[in-house]
Formats: sequence, C-alpha cells, structure tokens
Amino acid sequence: MATATQRPKVVIVGAGFGGLSALKTLGNKAVDVLLVDRNNYHGFWPLLYQVATGQLDSASIAYPIRGLIHSYKNADFQLADVSGVDFAGKQVQIENGAPIPYDYLILAAGSAQFYFGNDALAETTFSMKDVDQAEELRNHVIAAFEKAQTETDPEKRKQLMTVAIVGGGPTGVELAGAYVELFKYNFKRDFPSLDMAQARVILIEAMGNIMLPFSDPAIKGPSPLQKSTAKVLEDRGVEIMLNAAVDSVADNVVNFKDGRTLAAGTVIWAAGVRGAMLGDKLGLTLQRGARVQVNEELNLPEHPDVFVVGDMAYLEGFKWGDRVMAYPQVAQVAVQMAKQAAENIMVIAAGGQPSKFKYKDKGSMAIIGRNAAIVSSSKPIPMKMGTRWGTFFPGWVMWLVVHVMFLQGWRNRFVSIFNWMFNWMNKDRGVRVMTGKVDEKTEKLIAS
Amino acid sequence: MATATQRPKVVIVGAGFGGLSALKTLGNKAVDVLLVDRNNYHGFWPLLYQVATGQLDSASIAYPIRGLIHSYKNADFQLADVSGVDFAGKQVQIENGAPIPYDYLILAAGSAQFYFGNDALAETTFSMKDVDQAEELRNHVIAAFEKAQTETDPEKRKQLMTVAIVGGGPTGVELAGAYVELFKYNFKRDFPSLDMAQARVILIEAMGNIMLPFSDPAIKGPSPLQKSTAKVLEDRGVEIMLNAAVDSVADNVVNFKDGRTLAAGTVIWAAGVRGAMLGDKLGLTLQRGARVQVNEELNLPEHPDVFVVGDMAYLEGFKWGDRVMAYPQVAQVAVQMAKQAAENIMVIAAGGQPSKFKYKDKGSMAIIGRNAAIVSSSKPIPMKMGTRWGTFFPGWVMWLVVHVMFLQGWRNRFVSIFNWMFNWMNKDRGVRVMTGKVDEKTEKLIAS
Repeated sequence: MATATQRPKVVIVGAGFGGLSALKTLGNKAVDVLLVDRNNYHGFWPLLYQVATGQLDSASIAYPIRGLIHSYKNADFQLADVSGVDFAGKQVQIENGAPIPYDYLILAAGSAQFYFGNDALAETTFSMKDVDQAEELRNHVIAAFEKAQTETDPEKRKQLMTVAIVGGGPTGVELAGAYVELFKYNFKRDFPSLDMAQARVILIEAMGNIMLPFSDPAIKGPSPLQKSTAKVLEDRGVEIMLNAAVDSVADNVVNFKDGRTLAAGTVIWAAGVRGAMLGDKLGLTLQRGARVQVNEELNLPEHPDVFVVGDMAYLEGFKWGDRVMAYPQVAQVAVQMAKQAAENIMVIAAGGQPSKFKYKDKGSMAIIGRNAAIVSSSKPIPMKMGTRWGTFFPGWVMWLVVHVMFLQGWRNRFVSIFNWMFNWMNKDRGVRVMTGKVDEKTEKLIAS
Repeated sequence: MATATQRPKVVIVGAGFGGLSALKTLGNKAVDVLLVDRNNYHGFWPLLYQVATGQLDSASIAYPIRGLIHSYKNADFQLADVSGVDFAGKQVQIENGAPIPYDYLILAAGSAQFYFGNDALAETTFSMKDVDQAEELRNHVIAAFEKAQTETDPEKRKQLMTVAIVGGGPTGVELAGAYVELFKYNFKRDFPSLDMAQARVILIEAMGNIMLPFSDPAIKGPSPLQKSTAKVLEDRGVEIMLNAAVDSVADNVVNFKDGRTLAAGTVIWAAGVRGAMLGDKLGLTLQRGARVQVNEELNLPEHPDVFVVGDMAYLEGFKWGDRVMAYPQVAQVAVQMAKQAAENIMVIAAGGQPSKFKYKDKGSMAIIGRNAAIVSSSKPIPMKMGTRWGTFFPGWVMWLVVHVMFLQGWRNRFVSIFNWMFNWMNKDRGVRVMTGKVDEKTEKLIAS
C-alpha cells in the first residue's frame, strides 16, 4: 500500500534478472515497491537446460520471490499476469484483478520464443523458456526412450532415439552437450536392451557457423572459440548441420527448406528470441525482435515515467568491432539497465535529471558439457582459454563458480553444488524422473 | 527378454515399497525380472506431505527406477499402465502396448484414495497420493494466500486462508502439523500485508479420536499417544474437530452430516484408503477396502502363479490386542509380503513348497511437526517416548533417521538432510514455489 503523500509507488513487472536488480536498487529506499510476476518464483534460466536434461531439480533454479522481499520493508509482491498498461491512467492492467496504480513503472518482462513467423512450430516443437517447459522436455525425451524399448520397427525406434535441436546458439549448444552425456553415461546403463549407438543428437543451424555471439568481428568466418566449440561437440558425438534452414516440423519429422528431412522423436526449438508478448500489448511501435524502443535514459519517449529494461528493451549502443548494435538480450544487460532505471526513478522523484545508460561488458560464457565451457572477455578478442587448454577445464570451473554465485539463496547454491559433484563423480543424473507437466505431444506418444 | 528355456520370467507390477522389495529379492537370481510401473520413478510416499508443504522438492522423493535396476543383470523396467491380467493366457494387459507374458506375477500396485462411495469428493477436494497431486496441493495453498492478499471481502479472505484436512490419521496429522508451521514461520514473513492470525488449519475426524493406528486395545478411549498428539497439534494452533462426518464439499465449503458448514479455500481429503484400482479389473471377488484376498502363501487361490502383496492384498493374521485383523496397509507389510512372495516364486520354480507369510511388526511412527514425532513399538503397549519428553524430540530424531535410511539413493538422502537442516535452522521452507501441475480448482481460483 502506498502511503498517501510523498512516497512514490514503483511497480516492477517481471521477476527475472532485470526485475530483481531493480528491486535490490529500490529496496529500503524512499519509495514503495510492488513486484509483479505471473510466477511466484525467480527462475534462474541459465541453468534451465540442466532441468531439461535431468541434472538439477526445478526447485534448485526456482527461488520464491517472497523470500527475496523479506529484507526490504518497502517491498511487496503480487502474483498476476500483466495484460497491458493504461499509460494515461497510470495503471498496470492484469488478468483477473483490479488494475495496479503506479507512479513509476519498470517493465522487465523478458523475452519469448520467436518462430520467424511460423507459429505452427510452437505446437510441433519443444521450447525451453520456463521451468514447466523444461520439465515437459525432460519428460518427453525420457518417454521417447521408454517407448523405443518396446518399439519393434527399427526405423521408428531410431526416430524415437533422435533429438534434433534447432538453433546453434548457446542454448542449443548447452542442450546438445548435455543430451549426448545423458545418453552416453546414463541411458546406456538405464536401457540395457536398447542399442545406444543408434541414439543421435543433432544440432541444426541455419547459418554457416554455430555460436554467433562468440564470433570475432576481426575474423571472417568462425572464430577460434566457435571452431573449438564445434570440435568438442563433434568429438563427443553431436552431429552438427550447418546452413540448414528449417521450413516446418510435423509428425516428428523436420523438413528443411532445401528439401531434406530428418526424423526425430524430439525436436527442440532454440533458434529465435523476441521481446516478451507484453510489448505487443502496449500500443507502441516495436523495433526489430519485437522490442520496445527506449530513450538512452531507458524510459519511453512518450511516457517518461515508464521504463523498459532487459530483453524487452531496444537501445542501440553496443559496440561490436566497428559496428554499433542494440544491446544484446543477455542477463548482464538486464541487470545493469534495471539498476540504471531504478536509480533514474529515484533521481526524477527527487526532482533531478536522469542519467544515460552506460554498459559495462563483463564478457560472456557458455557451457558445452562436462569439463568444457568457453569464456569471452569484454574486448572484441576472445580469450583463448578454451583453445589453450584442450579440455576447456578452466572455462568450465569458471562457469560453475559464476553460476553458483548468481543463483539466489544458499539452499539452492548448496543443493546445486551437491548435485553437480554427484553428477560429475558418478557421471550420473539424479533427476531423470517424469514429474510435473506433460506436453500433449508426450501424451500422444505414450498413448501411441 | 526371457531366455528361451529354463529361466522363468517374473513380472512385478508396481515400483512402490512392495515392488522394490520383490526386485531386491529376485535380483541376480535364476529368474528374469520385469518391473512395470506407470511412473518411471519410485515415490517415497512417507515424505510426500513435505512436497505438499514446501519442505522438499519432488525430485528428492522420486528415485528413477532404472537407476535401481543397474545392479541386477536379470532385471529390466517397462513404463506402462497395467489395465488387467489375462490369467489363462498368463499375460499382463497394458494400456497402449502389447501384453506382457509372465510365468509368475507379483501384483504390488498399492492403494488409492477412497471416498466412501461419494466420488464427487474427488473433484471438490485435494488428495495426496503421488508427486503430481502433492505439487498441485502445494500450488493451490500458495495460490489461495496470493489471492487473499488482494481480496477485499474479509469473509472471502478468511476462507482463502483456511485449510481443512478431512481425516485425522497419520497423513492428516502430518499435513496439519506442517501447514501450521508453514503459516507461522514462512507465510507470516512472506505476506506482510496479510493478518496471519486469520490463517486456520482444521483437522476433521469423523470418529471420537484422531490417530486410530496409535490407539491401545487395552485402553477404552484415546491412548496416551493419541492424547499427546492432539495436545501438541492444538498447542501449535491446529483446530481439531472430532465426531465431524463430512457429507459433501462444494464451492470451497465443507458440509457436515450434522448440518454444520465450514468455509475453506483448500479442502484436503486424507480420510480413506482402498486397494489400487487394478484390483477392480481382475474379475476377482474383493474383500473390504477393495483388497484382493490371498492365500497365506500370498498367491491367489485360483491362480497360484499370481501373487498379490502390500496395500492391494487382503490377508488376516495381524494381532491387535485379542483381535486378529487384516494386515494393515503400511510399508512394512508390503516390504515383507513382497519378499515372501518373491522367495515363494523361487521355491515353486525349483519344485518346492511355498511358505506362509509371517509378519514381524517393527512398530510404527508418525511425525507431528518440528521436533515432534510419535513412535509405537510392535507390542500393543505404545512406547511413552512422546509423553515422557515434552517436546517429542527423541521420536522426531528417530523419525528422521529411519526416513533417511529408507530413502532410495545417496543423492536424495543428502539433499533431503540438507533441506531439513536448512528448514530446521531457518524455520524456512525453500520449496514454496508454484511449479508443475496445476489443478483445475486452482486455475479457477486464479481466474476468479
């Protein structure tokens, strides 16, 4: 409840990296904060692929939002699905409930899967944007192998044992790396009557190289990090298809634009990202990727009391070689934008002038699998860490440390570290259980 | 795959305590074993209430069955929902798949919720028989409190903050004890704008006393353990309604047979247990509780190659004071019956005579909550452990030790112990997140 007089009420939509960063910045300050999300937890999406591949339970990457507001006397949470914003009336509209008034608004609703205009793909493929989808994907892959055990037609059996991942970016790479390990170390023991040599993991990329975010503007063609990522994946058994644009997916067959086809019991769409659907409902002109154009101060030109940050926001200023591009849809951008937006709100509320967003690039990292991760620094020249060390081991250790640091809550950190130790020592996956939501495709498969 | 000649094929239906005990007994012996279950995990149901109340993640109590068959060269698993048995053709019939032939069959499909003929209760109440139901229950209670925060009608708000548990047996008691703690320690901090004095947990029992399994045949009226359980619950804030028979539940109102009503946002049915539905599909005459009558050797009079064990089986021989009753539907009975059935199969296959079931009662225990559990020995005189120690602390420690011992797998043991330590020290519940399946009642509530 906002007190009547001076304290302005800030509503934050979205409890991802951006939303939490804004909460932290505004916590115990001279404003009232209401965080709104359709889930009651903060999902740590960098580890979502581990839920999909049976390495972590979903509770380890889902932290109750209300546990995060305990430390702030000026903050509360409301579980609601935001359906729009009444800019004139200064109200956030929600599904099934009274609109929420605001003095200042921070929209940090993140991103959604993008199908390049072919939305039928949402029905015929799996995606991995939240905990429930990751559990659905895990359940489907397990169900496909269970089905394979009793399948007598050898072609159908091979199909069931094939996972196709569309999109050779970081998500596709981490999934591909994790699935070959799951099959090689676990399913091999789990399914003694299946010939695991027939299990396939295929990474499909429309462009000429995987891992575009790790390309080097100074190099024509793949960077050393891109090349070595591909080599590690192939050495471990992932099949990489380059220049392979997907036209459609139907009945567990991937149809490529060049006429090729691929039968796969599980098809995962990890190819496109767009700003959250909420962007469409704001009545604003959207930029490329359905992202909302913001001022350099991160607020809307038309509504200076409304800030948009993170994956939803479109702002140019990211330097890549000689080019200047929009800030990428990564956690670091969301965290830093949200902090700046929150600080700007406090400055404006105090009658001052907001500051322009300045990005401090802390580099990026991606995991390929057991003992292997790549790290690139903020400078355009990627660190040679991966290529200098054959196993990518230092990059992997760094990846683990950074991800544990950013996980919310000691319980989750401890349980995750234990799970990883257990997985690493035993080459085991403790969480290969079919619980939670089951996709229609999986129900159909089980009933077939 | 059964080899052609001598090795008999034993099919075990159900991977609960009974099924696993049979698997262990037959593992690496001169038989082929196929374990069949509709889930791909063994659920450790004694800790299910902890999933429902946000203390443990579901992965901690769900162990992948295929991880249990690694150590046995003669065992495999099949994911299938058993729909019946063709006794003459010696085949197990399954939904959506070829029938599974057997030489010997062990049916250990457990139990189902019983509504005393009023099956509409299955729709209007929550039950807690598997992981998905426990997650649905957890999600609903959280959703009800989230809804209460924005509810402006004080009566409706009180209703949303009320949990009614029908059935004063061990399940009802452990749920009631856990919910008052969740509200007192967690929700109080989580929902700063709610008046938690209005939160109610009501335990409803149709008989004159709670905790019937802990009654003493030598005592008329409640035993000391029953009395002290009731006292601890009431001291902690649980309201106990005795002699309160439920007639119906509709629109979140419990209607009692004596005309009273109780408005409760969450109504949990923990009152009745019956043998698994599979029993109904066997074409046999069922005993009380829809359980299958077996010989003292645990096989069917009509089909000596078919054994039924655990909650599904009906066999008299349990001594309670002067009376002889059917063996109770508890884990110890299932474990010991399954072992005996498996041994009898090996004896029969070798041309010998099967032995009669002999039960070794190891006592029973039930948890009331933080620092409090009760333990009764096999003798009709219950140990006074609880009443001698005001806090029930020794019983609680014993409960923890026994439950960790029987949990499958080191990963689950370790994660559970850590979670408990964390919960105990912080009075916190790390897993109060809304993930997994959502019941229709919860969807309706959120949309209201």
